[in-house]
Amino acid sequence: QDFTEKDFAEKLQSFRGFQTVKVLRESNANKCLFLHGKLNGQDAVVLLEKSPFDKEKVDELMNENTSLVETLKNDIYSTYTAFPEKSLNAVKATLIHPATPKHITKYTDQEAFVVHETEDIYQSVTLPYIESQAFSIQWVYNILEKKTESDRIVYEDDSPEVGFILLPDMKWDRKDIDALYLQAVVHKHGVKSLRDLDQSYLPLLRNILTKGEAAIKNKYGIPRSKLKVYIHYQPSYYHFHVHFTHVKLENPGFEADRAHLLSDVIENIEMKSDFYQHKTLTYKVREQDKLYQALKEYGYFEKEDNKS
Amino acid sequence: QDFTEKDFAEKLQSFRGFQTVKVLRESNANKCLFLHGKLNGQDAVVLLEKSPFDKEKVDELMNENTSLVETLKNDIYSTYTAFPEKSLNAVKATLIHPATPKHITKYTDQEAFVVHETEDIYQSVTLPYIESQAFSIQWVYNILEKKTESDRIVYEDDSPEVGFILLPDMKWDRKDIDALYLQAVVHKHGVKSLRDLDQSYLPLLRNILTKGEAAIKNKYGIPRSKLKVYIHYQPSYYHFHVHFTHVKLENPGFEADRAHLLSDVIENIEMKSDFYQHKTLTYKVREQDKLYQALKEYGYFEKEDNKS
Repeated sequence: QDFTEKDFAEKLQSFRGFQTVKVLRESNANKCLFLHGKLNGQDAVVLLEKSPFDKEKVDELMNENTSLVETLKNDIYSTYTAFPEKSLNAVKATLIHPATPKHITKYTDQEAFVVHETEDIYQSVTLPYIESQAFSIQWVYNILEKKTESDRIVYEDDSPEVGFILLPDMKWDRKDIDALYLQAVVHKHGVKSLRDLDQSYLPLLRNILTKGEAAIKNKYGIPRSKLKVYIHYQPSYYHFHVHFTHVKLENPGFEADRAHLLSDVIENIEMKSDFYQHKTLTYKVREQDKLYQALKEYGYFEKEDNKS
Repeated sequence: QDFTEKDFAEKLQSFRGFQTVKVLRESNANKCLFLHGKLNGQDAVVLLEKSPFDKEKVDELMNENTSLVETLKNDIYSTYTAFPEKSLNAVKATLIHPATPKHITKYTDQEAFVVHETEDIYQSVTLPYIESQAFSIQWVYNILEKKTESDRIVYEDDSPEVGFILLPDMKWDRKDIDALYLQAVVHKHGVKSLRDLDQSYLPLLRNILTKGEAAIKNKYGIPRSKLKVYIHYQPSYYHFHVHFTHVKLENPGFEADRAHLLSDVIENIEMKSDFYQHKTLTYKVREQDKLYQALKEYGYFEKEDNKS
């Protein structure tokens, strides 16, 4: 490799000179730590995450070079603190430098709140919020018109009423089948979310479920009993789309306060056409979400927390 | 500390002599690796998990002793592979030795399957399975009769019809408020699961929700907007109980194919008393679950996967 002097100057060899200002967030489950600090007098954000074990290097790990300190012993069970060789125990580090206040906010732990959105709250707060934001969904139209990502399309039904484009989610590496993640984006415009669905959309919903599952079985060999098919509420963008993931994928987007199984949605609407217009829908907001602000200004949380 | 010679002989100093037979399971999200191997000629199971970062030791980590190798640079963003000092980068290891075939099976990755349980499948497979198993729930009765765990009770409503005992879940350390996890166990016997609920149980369900939330606000200062309140289907034991967790707790038990929000359950039954007798309920089974075997013998999966 060739380095210019400038490259060399900027390429860090260690965290020498880094001064921690604050721990922004930590996750014990995922072994992450996000820091705000100073480097060369400028703000920096460092995202640290322990690496997964490398299956290919198990033999290098499980030998005399990994020292052990026993912490507990009970019959056939014992626990140890193990110290592997440095080279086998990497940490992934992302540095943002210089960092703006926006970066610092973005990676700071946010308070989360549970919202029980009644029909009335939807009409009074959520719907006006969605309409006032006038979110740009041009990027979705670009996909549907095949101006972008057309080489990524897995399946298409081009009907303007019940059709959709099926393509890999950005979070999927397209290699690990156990982590399969696709999205079906409908051709029809104007369906904002679950709240808009009634029996007039049953042909669309059934078509996505049936043809989406068939396309995935065809292309990847994954049968119906290995697939989770669901809708987000709130969605991350207000053009109707459906998530298809492998049963083994553990992702936060499948939590019970966000994911609604498409088969449940179809069944509920079959039972009662206006099910989702009247249903109280429960979801999580974070303090930096604009919807949280809108709900707060409306006095939602004050009222809610005085109930109990 | 005093060690007997026997203790000393059994206390491992390293993984010297360990021979890996097979990788049983790995989780990239949680940085775990489970191994089957041989140690002193006997079977062993080793469970490895990278430790979370220690917030108290950030300054020891973020200095010249942590070496960096740059992997990518783009404007203000750069990524590195970091190598912290051995002592700051521990791995938690659990050793089961000698291990039985049962241990090996227990820690082996299992195939998972999505089940769409219709009313008919419930009557034909699930209900007979529950009844045939005759699960012992004596331990639940012991809690309700205060023969065990009575010192752990957070709140009790002693009504035999709508009452319950609220106590910490075993998974909660009772210290970290952001990880709060309680269970409400009903005094009434014979309510197996969500499938049994109809309007005759509305007073019970509303009582658990209202008094459970109030007790948690009282004792821990956590308001309604910070609580997730839900039921599992399938439950882990067939005596009716409700989960209360902090909004921040990320636990697999809150996945959309297992957790049913109590507020949704109440609203659905208010709308239609026999909602849960007719509803198709979707959940995950693993190949070693007896319910999986029962469904398979019934031919459920064959039929299901020929649909798509």
